[in-house]
Amino acid sequence: MTKTGAPATARRLLPDAPLLLAARGERPNRQPVWFMRQAGRSLPEYRKLRADQPMLRACMTPELVCEITLQPVRRHGVDAAILFSDIMVPLHAAGVGLDIVPGTGPVVERPVRSASEIMALPVLEPDAVEPVAAAVRLLVAELGQTPLIGFAGAPFTLASYLVEGGPSRHHEHTKALMHAEPDLWHALLGRLAELTLTFLKVQAAAGVDALQLFDSWAGALSQREYRQFVFPHSARVLAGLAGTGVPRIHFGVGTGELLGAMAHAGADVVGVDWRIPLDVAAQRVRAAREHGPIVLQGNLDPAALLAGWPAVEREVLRVIAEGSAADAHVLNLGHGVLPETDPDMLTRIVELVHSR
Amino acid sequence: MTKTGAPATARRLLPDAPLLLAARGERPNRQPVWFMRQAGRSLPEYRKLRADQPMLRACMTPELVCEITLQPVRRHGVDAAILFSDIMVPLHAAGVGLDIVPGTGPVVERPVRSASEIMALPVLEPDAVEPVAAAVRLLVAELGQTPLIGFAGAPFTLASYLVEGGPSRHHEHTKALMHAEPDLWHALLGRLAELTLTFLKVQAAAGVDALQLFDSWAGALSQREYRQFVFPHSARVLAGLAGTGVPRIHFGVGTGELLGAMAHAGADVVGVDWRIPLDVAAQRVRAAREHGPIVLQGNLDPAALLAGWPAVEREVLRVIAEGSAADAHVLNLGHGVLPETDPDMLTRIVELVHSR
Repeated sequence: MTKTGAPATARRLLPDAPLLLAARGERPNRQPVWFMRQAGRSLPEYRKLRADQPMLRACMTPELVCEITLQPVRRHGVDAAILFSDIMVPLHAAGVGLDIVPGTGPVVERPVRSASEIMALPVLEPDAVEPVAAAVRLLVAELGQTPLIGFAGAPFTLASYLVEGGPSRHHEHTKALMHAEPDLWHALLGRLAELTLTFLKVQAAAGVDALQLFDSWAGALSQREYRQFVFPHSARVLAGLAGTGVPRIHFGVGTGELLGAMAHAGADVVGVDWRIPLDVAAQRVRAAREHGPIVLQGNLDPAALLAGWPAVEREVLRVIAEGSAADAHVLNLGHGVLPETDPDMLTRIVELVHSR
Repeated sequence: MTKTGAPATARRLLPDAPLLLAARGERPNRQPVWFMRQAGRSLPEYRKLRADQPMLRACMTPELVCEITLQPVRRHGVDAAILFSDIMVPLHAAGVGLDIVPGTGPVVERPVRSASEIMALPVLEPDAVEPVAAAVRLLVAELGQTPLIGFAGAPFTLASYLVEGGPSRHHEHTKALMHAEPDLWHALLGRLAELTLTFLKVQAAAGVDALQLFDSWAGALSQREYRQFVFPHSARVLAGLAGTGVPRIHFGVGTGELLGAMAHAGADVVGVDWRIPLDVAAQRVRAAREHGPIVLQGNLDPAALLAGWPAVEREVLRVIAEGSAADAHVLNLGHGVLPETDPDMLTRIVELVHSR
């Protein structure tokens, strides 16, 4: 029995899973493809299930998480399932008052800015995210040979939601705290790194096959700020997962200038948005890395998926060609699936990638 | 008499104005400093004046534009006035139904997406922006030795507002149009380039001393998209201003990857946001330019201005040091002044820059 009271799950062996081979820098016999936010908004079967379920309640209901996570695997035949969750789940589970407001995003009841507010942040006990672990166990039993990717928000992105009190365009209170009170900032990020690591370890123990650390907002920072104020905490999370044996994917939006630093933080796979081509991304990661294969994930522009198939096909082929500069390439979007995306477009992309 | 019915204004001679010397790549005896959005939101005297005035009406009232534009010059002693206006003004003046909604931004009555909607876009007649020309003439008479910067939104940014119908995080309909119907896209941007050029020429004829072309959203694009779909139209606007004799500043947010292309578009001064240091920006512009001095504008993070004076002072000194890699450097923010900024912080920055 593990600490969470659940039976320890021996990780499945998936020796032929293209995603896991690619994550180790090998060239699988077909290129792996999945889509960030594939489980969710763009699928009518998802919208139906979620109709009367608030987001956080849905994320804490194992059967619902399992079904929503499976929907895009069934529909599109993608090479990975991504756990249906929200980056605010571990904060919610730890007891921070917050809600996911439709059309707005996460809203925190009381922004966290002062020393006393930071010191009062609750610690995440593994038991508090037992419903997520239960969902992982259900999924592992259902998924057959398809790997399951777990995920969490990175310390900086969680900090921005906590400090601003919600989504922010300029992250001004977050950056003000960072520059005005660096010690307090590092105390906050240290606590969030701990919470993130606990959450990801629970997912690993429950049986996920890979983990993605999302630093959605890191692209708002200069490289100097990233290295000084964010990198040590993200690196600690990624290093803390080394013992789990599952590949670690690290992704942020608009992080072209930060790829070297992010690659250095200990990720096996570096996610890239659409702003720079993958061959340029491969150069940047290679320049920053002392050893190990260069594995990239990305980087179709989700907005381009609304342009109709001929344009989408052109973009997919371009991304595949540019991605060949890496040792291995997991085809994905450069950000989450947009809600208005035609799901058939996703299915056709998977067919195209697999047909090659 | 000019085409707009106003007396032709002989441009003032401001041989010692630091901004204009710097724009030509010379080193003035003091470093010029001004702030994007200095005329507006952060000033109590501005909020008082605007209390009962909708934005677009304010922008079309010459005496009000003059007073609002002068406020930060009086208060901070900056080295340039920036015309109080809005990037939607020329579209509004041409007859496109739109409003500036407080807390939201520009909202267009009917999004422009189809061929017929694009072909029906009205042309801007110079007379329609005569109130802006009148404001410029008032300002030129009031400003003494302080140069006045006119401005307009670049074709891509205007297109995004028109196609999306308002502010957009993902620019998905804009990008879909670009990729799905490139001919239509270029027809739209051609019309917007014409409108922007007309508007800027009116400002130049009325007597502004410099012009800034804002491509606020260009950072949402890859360099490939920028070069193919945006660059030709921005370059046409900038080239069309060459005959006016006023320096041209070109700026966008998150455009580190695009600086080479933007420098190539014909700007005398390249604006840079805070994401890359100015010495790196200088390298990128230098690599892209065949001749001419490297003049940069920027790049304090507006969010960092909320961190208190010791942090702000540190940041200003760092930016000045990094900016010395350019032939000349106009100190500014890397985006507009945030509404919650303490105006005294701006005054102290000007004092610090001028004390050196």
